[in-house]
Amino acid sequence: MSIGYEADKQSLLRRLKRVEGQIRGIQRMLEEDRYCVDILIQIAAVRAALDKVGLALIEDHTRGCVRNALANNQGDEAIDELMDVIAQFLK
Amino acid sequence: MSIGYEADKQSLLRRLKRVEGQIRGIQRMLEEDRYCVDILIQIAAVRAALDKVGLALIEDHTRGCVRNALANNQGDEAIDELMDVIAQFLK
Amino acid sequence: MSIGYEADKQSLLRRLKRVEGQIRGIQRMLEEDRYCVDILIQIAAVRAALDKVGLALIEDHTRGCVRNALANNQGDEAIDELMDVIAQFLK
Amino acid sequence: MSIGYEADKQSLLRRLKRVEGQIRGIQRMLEEDRYCVDILIQIAAVRAALDKVGLALIEDHTRGCVRNALANNQGDEAIDELMDVIAQFLK
Repeated sequence: MSIGYEADKQSLLRRLKRVEGQIRGIQRMLEEDRYCVDILIQIAAVRAALDKVGLALIEDHTRGCVRNALANNQGDEAIDELMDVIAQFLK
Repeated sequence: MSIGYEADKQSLLRRLKRVEGQIRGIQRMLEEDRYCVDILIQIAAVRAALDKVGLALIEDHTRGCVRNALANNQGDEAIDELMDVIAQFLK
Repeated sequence: MSIGYEADKQSLLRRLKRVEGQIRGIQRMLEEDRYCVDILIQIAAVRAALDKVGLALIEDHTRGCVRNALANNQGDEAIDELMDVIAQFLK
Repeated sequence: MSIGYEADKQSLLRRLKRVEGQIRGIQRMLEEDRYCVDILIQIAAVRAALDKVGLALIEDHTRGCVRNALANNQGDEAIDELMDVIAQFLK
């Protein structure tokens, strides 16, 4: 089975690398006793960045895997799974 | 000025260390061409973990800094700032 | 063009009727000077109920319209539109 | 006990009246078999409007009740309660 995010893989990896750096930056801020609100703003920024990665992957998945499943009469299961994932992100 | 999260610092750092490990795990999943939905479930889990760190820090900040500001007649500015931060997390 | 939520229409309308009643209930609570936190809990409940209606409609839309569009070579536009809508809910 | 949202009450009621109208508008859209995506955009708009009402009420509550509780040595319970409510909105 092919994966849906093949074409986006390097861009997704770069974005996650950046998120990883931001998480380390937040740890440093805590170690340096930085002001809570400045740390919270960084956490909110990482959260937004992760949402964008998630959304990009949901899009790749829909264009790739869900579309293929629909073309092969396995659309119902694929859409069930997609809805479960979207519900996770809405929580 | 004292910081609000002093007593929680080690626990917050441990949690962020774990988040950092999860982010690296997600990068590995992408490199190994793992199934999109499995990766998305991990991203949703990290998002939830980050929300918990954010909420813990908002609590520390309120119990510490906001409370002190209120006791020193600087409550209005402190509450403005707190509301801005909560609005960031509601987005 | 057929609509995606035909089979779910009565259930969606019932749920929205209940949401409307909850919103009126919240107005009454304000008029009766009820405790802020009790009102906030009701607002959070309505928000969760609306998310469920939104998710059910996203599912109907995907199973109906997006699937049809994919079968008719108009999948790209349909998926663009779906992603825009999901992004609105992630905000 | 005074309530925290006294000064904002009319503005909160007006906003909830508008939300109620939007919910009725969404029901009409369903009855008229309008396009799913147009309905979803309206649901997302109501969700955002409700979040703003919630945030305004959280602010009133913090400036009023939480501040009073802190001044009367009942701050810990008040902050526990506030954090529970914020956690509801973050879900």
